[in-house]
Amino acid sequence: MERPRHQGMAKNTYMRWRLPLVCLLWEVAMIILFGVFVRFSPEADAHWEEEKREMNLTSDIENDFYFRYPSFQDVHVMIFVGFGFLMTFLKRYGFGAVGFNFLLAAFGIQWALLMQGWFHSFKSGKILIGVENLINADFCVGSVCIAFGAILGKTSPIQLLVMTLFQVTLFAVNEYILLNLLHVKDAGGSMTIHTFGAYFGLTVTRILYRPNLEQCKDKQGSVYHSDLFAMIGTLYLWMYWPSFNSAISDHGDAQHRAAINTYCSLAACVLTTMAFSSMLQKKGKLDMVHIQNATLAGGVAVGTSAEMMLTPYGSLIVGFICGIVSTVGYVYLTPFLESRLHIQDTCGIHNLHAMPGLIGGIVGAITAAAATEDVYGKEGFIKAFDFTGAYQTRTPSVQGGFQAAGIVVSLLIAFAGGALVGKKGSMERGRLSSACGRVAPQVPEDEESDAYHMHNPDKPASP
Amino acid sequence: MERPRHQGMAKNTYMRWRLPLVCLLWEVAMIILFGVFVRFSPEADAHWEEEKREMNLTSDIENDFYFRYPSFQDVHVMIFVGFGFLMTFLKRYGFGAVGFNFLLAAFGIQWALLMQGWFHSFKSGKILIGVENLINADFCVGSVCIAFGAILGKTSPIQLLVMTLFQVTLFAVNEYILLNLLHVKDAGGSMTIHTFGAYFGLTVTRILYRPNLEQCKDKQGSVYHSDLFAMIGTLYLWMYWPSFNSAISDHGDAQHRAAINTYCSLAACVLTTMAFSSMLQKKGKLDMVHIQNATLAGGVAVGTSAEMMLTPYGSLIVGFICGIVSTVGYVYLTPFLESRLHIQDTCGIHNLHAMPGLIGGIVGAITAAAATEDVYGKEGFIKAFDFTGAYQTRTPSVQGGFQAAGIVVSLLIAFAGGALVGKKGSMERGRLSSACGRVAPQVPEDEESDAYHMHNPDKPASP
Amino acid sequence: MERPRHQGMAKNTYMRWRLPLVCLLWEVAMIILFGVFVRFSPEADAHWEEEKREMNLTSDIENDFYFRYPSFQDVHVMIFVGFGFLMTFLKRYGFGAVGFNFLLAAFGIQWALLMQGWFHSFKSGKILIGVENLINADFCVGSVCIAFGAILGKTSPIQLLVMTLFQVTLFAVNEYILLNLLHVKDAGGSMTIHTFGAYFGLTVTRILYRPNLEQCKDKQGSVYHSDLFAMIGTLYLWMYWPSFNSAISDHGDAQHRAAINTYCSLAACVLTTMAFSSMLQKKGKLDMVHIQNATLAGGVAVGTSAEMMLTPYGSLIVGFICGIVSTVGYVYLTPFLESRLHIQDTCGIHNLHAMPGLIGGIVGAITAAAATEDVYGKEGFIKAFDFTGAYQTRTPSVQGGFQAAGIVVSLLIAFAGGALVGKKGSMERGRLSSACGRVAPQVPEDEESDAYHMHNPDKPASP
Repeated sequence: MERPRHQGMAKNTYMRWRLPLVCLLWEVAMIILFGVFVRFSPEADAHWEEEKREMNLTSDIENDFYFRYPSFQDVHVMIFVGFGFLMTFLKRYGFGAVGFNFLLAAFGIQWALLMQGWFHSFKSGKILIGVENLINADFCVGSVCIAFGAILGKTSPIQLLVMTLFQVTLFAVNEYILLNLLHVKDAGGSMTIHTFGAYFGLTVTRILYRPNLEQCKDKQGSVYHSDLFAMIGTLYLWMYWPSFNSAISDHGDAQHRAAINTYCSLAACVLTTMAFSSMLQKKGKLDMVHIQNATLAGGVAVGTSAEMMLTPYGSLIVGFICGIVSTVGYVYLTPFLESRLHIQDTCGIHNLHAMPGLIGGIVGAITAAAATEDVYGKEGFIKAFDFTGAYQTRTPSVQGGFQAAGIVVSLLIAFAGGALVGKKGSMERGRLSSACGRVAPQVPEDEESDAYHMHNPDKPASP
Repeated sequence: MERPRHQGMAKNTYMRWRLPLVCLLWEVAMIILFGVFVRFSPEADAHWEEEKREMNLTSDIENDFYFRYPSFQDVHVMIFVGFGFLMTFLKRYGFGAVGFNFLLAAFGIQWALLMQGWFHSFKSGKILIGVENLINADFCVGSVCIAFGAILGKTSPIQLLVMTLFQVTLFAVNEYILLNLLHVKDAGGSMTIHTFGAYFGLTVTRILYRPNLEQCKDKQGSVYHSDLFAMIGTLYLWMYWPSFNSAISDHGDAQHRAAINTYCSLAACVLTTMAFSSMLQKKGKLDMVHIQNATLAGGVAVGTSAEMMLTPYGSLIVGFICGIVSTVGYVYLTPFLESRLHIQDTCGIHNLHAMPGLIGGIVGAITAAAATEDVYGKEGFIKAFDFTGAYQTRTPSVQGGFQAAGIVVSLLIAFAGGALVGKKGSMERGRLSSACGRVAPQVPEDEESDAYHMHNPDKPASP
Repeated sequence: MERPRHQGMAKNTYMRWRLPLVCLLWEVAMIILFGVFVRFSPEADAHWEEEKREMNLTSDIENDFYFRYPSFQDVHVMIFVGFGFLMTFLKRYGFGAVGFNFLLAAFGIQWALLMQGWFHSFKSGKILIGVENLINADFCVGSVCIAFGAILGKTSPIQLLVMTLFQVTLFAVNEYILLNLLHVKDAGGSMTIHTFGAYFGLTVTRILYRPNLEQCKDKQGSVYHSDLFAMIGTLYLWMYWPSFNSAISDHGDAQHRAAINTYCSLAACVLTTMAFSSMLQKKGKLDMVHIQNATLAGGVAVGTSAEMMLTPYGSLIVGFICGIVSTVGYVYLTPFLESRLHIQDTCGIHNLHAMPGLIGGIVGAITAAAATEDVYGKEGFIKAFDFTGAYQTRTPSVQGGFQAAGIVVSLLIAFAGGALVGKKGSMERGRLSSACGRVAPQVPEDEESDAYHMHNPDKPASP
């Protein structure tokens, strides 16, 4: 890591203070905004005893905490360990992946509590937060983690934080349009989290494209142990995905059903991923990249429909298809995107989140359009799609249309937002060399680039 | 991994298509069978509102989902991360262990949902699945993961899948005989999961025995980091075992009690494992293999009795004994089994699952036989052993006898089933060299053997 | 590990039997004491059906198991995986850290069930245990794991077990004084777990100080992969800390609130840790030690106040401050403690547990003193601070005073207890060389020192 310095100390000093300043100032801003706006929801407030009486609840177990907290913790693990370790497969970015994921997620959840709070939990001037808000904040940050997968190794921590700020904001806007204006169902976020997050990230990485990045391919290699670390990420995402898709569904049957559908879809997805991975390799071997990623596509693709009556065999079919689509994407589409469209997709999020997210949106639209009172029961039908109030005359086919519109809106906002953020990052290029470009000798060095790698001077470098 | 090829392309092509074809065809079969048979249980169906009214439930929290989902997720982690990473201690099979465990478990849970569904959840032509079915499917696959531990490194993925198909089927038959015909209690599966799974696997590995396998011992070595990965598996199994043994117990006190008993047994087991590990080593050092495995024997051995009134000190005694038995087994029995009985038990499942499973069955029989209305209370007694309907006149000592019969039945089906599957695998030997034998030069090479290792041609091999 | 032997076989034999004997005799003692004292709580006993009727409970879901079991499992993971893996950053102690942590925790929870049981769950001659006792036992052992962090690499497993025995005992005494005599609130254990545990460990390590320990600094280095393993520990502690602080809070709003406050504090702490880590490093890089440890200080520091109406922005402020204090501590205080005060704090627990624990106690005292009926509601106020019975006239400011007294008591007992245990360990020094000192040639060798390292003679040593 030690190289001779060519740059003056003035810049050095400037750069050195950038990350600390951004972190501290933003955190101060969070404190002020939380102070002005954020309070406990009635179920987390000490007035709960009175609330309970008013709501005619006979037991503390009726507190939403007990319905959702176990799922929240599973989602929490997915965001911090799942996404963090999934990206450790690169031999030189294991630390960066986990550490920067940690940083952006910790910042993002605070900003998401505010943004989503203003849109969804705002009552008489205050945002009232409970466990469901924590889950939604984690979800929102999940979309940033996805986008991070596309630009892994190309940005500084400050650029990541800026991206997080913008993406969380746009996420909340997009979510508001989908859930409140279009009255769309998307409990597991096929559209709001995966489609939006992935196309946002892909747009950013397209704009940040530079040909000489290819020279540092050696850094993208993996080693045996980094692949085992990545499997930790994969397995936690895979195992807890039923919690992800069911975490904010309605109490009772909807949560139950969402977990079962996701479990089925993921199981089928593993089989077709292994099949196509073996089939498309020259010697019939299995490719760890596919196993680490494509096996998860089944969870993404039932994100919208898991809480609907997709049925177990319907879920198997979705998982079956997505394992194939995602694996084929890794083999044929990723190289094509890089060579022809100049989209350097470090972790292959196009195959894991973008395409399966789109499929998930479409499956959701079809499942909603196909809903009947016979299948759902009279009450279940109304409850499942929230056909009450202004929406009580909406029919399944109209709902299907709105679901489809949700996909389009998510795509548009992702492209526009990604372009905006990418351009901003691109303009800073003159000053900030990318982490990867840094090792290529023709790129001018500066101190900021050192901040990309975490290290401890007291510790020896990697073996 | 690159070696010169001696074989023709015809065979190559045939082999290359085997794994994909099996995976795809079987998954298609799953979709068809799920389509014909599998539907949601009333608690996961959109008709739940009506169901709730019929069952006089006042709150969604009464849905079985909230009683069992947290335990389900813990069990899920044990199957995929626990068993997967426990087997990463071999330095060259870390990938294979985690990856193939992933493949067989993902396939196995689907087949288990069907098999167990036909036996236990079949109503008017449909299998109705809920969270308890998911747990049971994970349990069933757990027995396959155990058997996998005996043959790790000796079989191709296809052989593993075939074994999974057979073993899951026999598991369901054995479970049906025990739980329904003998009316035996076995919530944590000492008999159905551990005894059955382990002796099944040991029978298979006995039949697959070949002397020249010993030549590739170098592959069975471990390295520092692979042992830390294995500790991840160990600890997750150890920590979540209370969830495993309580996951399908009756609501309320039974789940509560099963968790406490298991917690106590596991704690005691750690102490005696460490004691005997240190005592039996030449220089008093601790052996990582014992710590990784024998510490878990206490969980296996209270699998049947944990939900009974075993009491905390009873659990400590069981854990105390099992830590000793299991550690002594690793030191003296495993070498004996290999040299004299030609049983190559790669992960030592005889010490971790087979013997403790037998002890668990016996402890369960004794605990049941010793049950009194005084200890359980009148209602508790009937509820604990389900002494209702046709069984309302059964006495504790008779129940103890049936429990003991359950052990014998499990053993018989394990031996018979293992012999069948082993013979089948053995006959394919002419064509399929084993993964391990492959490195010995006298064994003819073929392409299939390459499928044992997952690799990515773009990635450098392990360091 | 193989060095020529200079010592006679007599001592060898004596040493070799020490660890096994201690483990076995203590476990036998546990069995006897459990047999005499420990029984199931009514909620885990088979008489639960009768209990339910007496308590007018209509559903099994009212069993405390369902309120606390998910949190218990999260806490369990923190103790065994969290603390265990957090200490794997040392390249030569990865095994020892995880393995000895496993050993001491497994023993400690049994002794804690007894000690805490005698003080808190003793009814007509029996200790009645349920899920809350399991959580409290894990908490108690958590304080030992913290102290272990200070002396990591300096003690034999037997010394660790002796320390565990003493520390658990003193923990229970201190906890009894605080919770029962002073009637103090400390759900997340800022005082009872962190302040007590850390100052206990620091006192022990001070007394065990020997200058030549510094010669073996090379052993304290880390490698790339050991830092990734340590991040597993960090992240599981960070993610599950909301469960830790809410695990034994009152049902309903208190658990809910404790989780939210902790979530907020931890998020803020990550930002200021990253800021100061980057600011205090010469080149603006991030230091993995800070990220692995200081990010957790926010959870420690709301341990007392999380269940109070600290509010989300209050939590952010606490996290903000603690990230700074902890990081600055690692940079300036740890070297000072070692060079001037001769306190060798291997894992830096002074920065992660001691200072944040003190802050947590103070924040708790202030939050309690500032409580008003307006903020809590009339019922909520009484419930939150348990102002019933003998305490119904206690005012918030008096409560604040008692909270502050709790800090002082915890400190005094920690210093006294640590001094006692340290002296005992120090006196054994003539016979037992420390694990680290062992490599320094001037220290006489003995066989016991070998027991510090776990190894398997069949396995090659670390690469």
